[in-house]
Amino acid sequence: MSKDLRVGIAGLGTVGGGTVRLLLENADLLAARCGRPVTLAAVAERSNNRVPGLPMDGIAWHGDAMALLDEDLDVTVELIGGAEGVSRDLVAESLRRGRHVVTANKALIAHHGAELARLAEAHGVVLAFEAAVAGGIPIVKAIREGMAGNNYSRVYGILNGTCNYILTAMRETGREFAEVLREAQDLGYAEADPGFDVDGIDTAHKLAILASVAFGCEIDFPAVHVEGIRRVSALDIGFADELGYRIKLLGVASRTEGGIEQRVHPCMVARDTPIAAVEGVFNAVVAHGDFVDTTMHVGRGAGERPTASAVVADIADIARGPRPPTFGIPSRDLARLPTRPMAEHVGAYYARLSVVDRPGVFADIAAALGAHEVSMESVLQRGRAPNEPVPLVMTLHETREASVVAALDAIGRQDSVVEPPYMIRMESF
Amino acid sequence: MSKDLRVGIAGLGTVGGGTVRLLLENADLLAARCGRPVTLAAVAERSNNRVPGLPMDGIAWHGDAMALLDEDLDVTVELIGGAEGVSRDLVAESLRRGRHVVTANKALIAHHGAELARLAEAHGVVLAFEAAVAGGIPIVKAIREGMAGNNYSRVYGILNGTCNYILTAMRETGREFAEVLREAQDLGYAEADPGFDVDGIDTAHKLAILASVAFGCEIDFPAVHVEGIRRVSALDIGFADELGYRIKLLGVASRTEGGIEQRVHPCMVARDTPIAAVEGVFNAVVAHGDFVDTTMHVGRGAGERPTASAVVADIADIARGPRPPTFGIPSRDLARLPTRPMAEHVGAYYARLSVVDRPGVFADIAAALGAHEVSMESVLQRGRAPNEPVPLVMTLHETREASVVAALDAIGRQDSVVEPPYMIRMESF
Repeated sequence: MSKDLRVGIAGLGTVGGGTVRLLLENADLLAARCGRPVTLAAVAERSNNRVPGLPMDGIAWHGDAMALLDEDLDVTVELIGGAEGVSRDLVAESLRRGRHVVTANKALIAHHGAELARLAEAHGVVLAFEAAVAGGIPIVKAIREGMAGNNYSRVYGILNGTCNYILTAMRETGREFAEVLREAQDLGYAEADPGFDVDGIDTAHKLAILASVAFGCEIDFPAVHVEGIRRVSALDIGFADELGYRIKLLGVASRTEGGIEQRVHPCMVARDTPIAAVEGVFNAVVAHGDFVDTTMHVGRGAGERPTASAVVADIADIARGPRPPTFGIPSRDLARLPTRPMAEHVGAYYARLSVVDRPGVFADIAAALGAHEVSMESVLQRGRAPNEPVPLVMTLHETREASVVAALDAIGRQDSVVEPPYMIRMESF
Repeated sequence: MSKDLRVGIAGLGTVGGGTVRLLLENADLLAARCGRPVTLAAVAERSNNRVPGLPMDGIAWHGDAMALLDEDLDVTVELIGGAEGVSRDLVAESLRRGRHVVTANKALIAHHGAELARLAEAHGVVLAFEAAVAGGIPIVKAIREGMAGNNYSRVYGILNGTCNYILTAMRETGREFAEVLREAQDLGYAEADPGFDVDGIDTAHKLAILASVAFGCEIDFPAVHVEGIRRVSALDIGFADELGYRIKLLGVASRTEGGIEQRVHPCMVARDTPIAAVEGVFNAVVAHGDFVDTTMHVGRGAGERPTASAVVADIADIARGPRPPTFGIPSRDLARLPTRPMAEHVGAYYARLSVVDRPGVFADIAAALGAHEVSMESVLQRGRAPNEPVPLVMTLHETREASVVAALDAIGRQDSVVEPPYMIRMESF
């Protein structure tokens, strides 16, 4: 296995903590996928909060983020935040020194992305920011690489989980914005100073980045039209529902004949469209390309672990260098894992029978289920036709498939059951 | 710009035709994103069907796919299909000769993927198959790279558009499988010999590939439990609806203590889960990782253009070599595109007013709208309170935003309108 990739993290807040956790907890997995170990060599955090429950010994600790520049590192991971100051200085100077940079800093990229990208190219290193847009959803990679052949006409989405949570809760409870915002703050879904989220600025940062990646244009954050959700009232949400719509705060970037349109504002979207079903703290990004047509990518848009997932994906890209292995790890390391037989599968079941409609039939069926320790949740019989076959369906509680199969076999052999029972598994994801 | 990447395509069926079309139509875009031209140098197709409407001159044409081996190519694109025969021989021999391979062939990868991956590694070339799973959805890249830090516990999805179309149509029309299948065949959504799709084999091929990429295990296609949708009846779909479920053909791969569980069969999923909303020919893949939590990726699972999008994304990865540029193209080439002002935005609108409930008020509002050439679609007034303020909402037909803003300004200045109108844009995506 080749030399390890040495990583230094600036900022041990929520995302920083999650990134440390991932690098340490999944170290073996990462080494296997990258073909080399990823070593967390140094961290910088002004406050002294250690990441709870993690052994940080052997990891250099600095109070000043700029001190990471003097460490022997391959990658600077900037998780401090803010468009200016130490975050900007650290990223720029790391690139100038020929060091790769991974950041989750949407404000920094939205304001200085193009200039930092030029720096990265000039020094032949990577500047990566998957975590800056839609948290755990790998949408930057999807647009830039996964659908690289497409001419994109539009990219839009729900890019702020706080706003989506508030709008969802307003609809579900009928309460007003201010009240739901307070609740969201108590639950930690909204900041004490919520303006950055509810006034749409955070969404605008992310949209400006997406537009640049999709349309191949320089980020133009000042050109984004921004409206937040403070003026959305319970009345609006009620009327929207009557009209068959949901209200979402969307960021929409379109390529039009008149130029690029970038807008962030509350939108009414038809209740039966996929994006309307994206509720609570989830984010969704829809990309429309001339060949792929419409794709939607849904996931958690924030939080310690999902955002860390995106940060580490960028680190893994750097560690892997040229290309990842065909199946994610070198084929010689592909495991031969045992198969769990379907008989061992545990789940709920739906079963349809065709039975002769006469007394006692159901008792026999119930007896067969009981004999195999299968318990019924519900039973439905449609229509009555004395001594004629009628459909009878049952739903069965969670149980081992072997028991269900045996019970249905026994039932299928009963005189009053006129065709082999048909079973459909019920999934609860 | 560096040397061009020379590509040869074997098989000019639906996907082959779409790939040729994409490579020619979006050639400039691709060259910009890859930093070098992608040249379609040769094609092989036994039958003589040219791709309609495309200039194929200057492109070498062979009746025998194996003849591509003697062409000067960097990449063999195998779009013939089938787990054995010429497709397998061409792919294996291309890899042996140190040539990259891109394929959309799920059967080939499901049966021989591990062995071909070893061959690719032994010769230091790429074997890529994004197009083999879920058509245009870049799910292989998302699992392998975009969420590379995650330990995956489960990957599942709707992986066959034909089955999803049939199940959706059965629910919407209440008709039986056989009848809907015939219709799907007439519409070209199902093959004359539909077994490969409706019996679940196609889904099983894709699932086995996803499981390998997610769990880092060798593809084990024979271990997949496979049931199709032939036995699903209109009765089942009706009962499912009563119980609050939708019936979908899912491929589900789970890592369990007992080993890897791979199963393809009809499932009942709760009507309000996101995957239940994926209807018709669309595919969806849900991946669950220990850090990213749950992500869902939705798009077209088949068809000429979406599948071509995935084929070309793999070609672009090879052309780009080590790493794609930060924003998809080199920063010096990032365009400065004009901004279209919101005043030019055209869309439908919702407006909420608070008006004094007295005769004539509405006439004044209608007049103001008419004066600005804004036409109303609907109007709703809630409650009656003579000479008191009541909410009044309108929906407005598609129009320029400047006109709507001007009309609402005028309305806001009317005596009987007691607070500034609030407007929400209505999107139809």
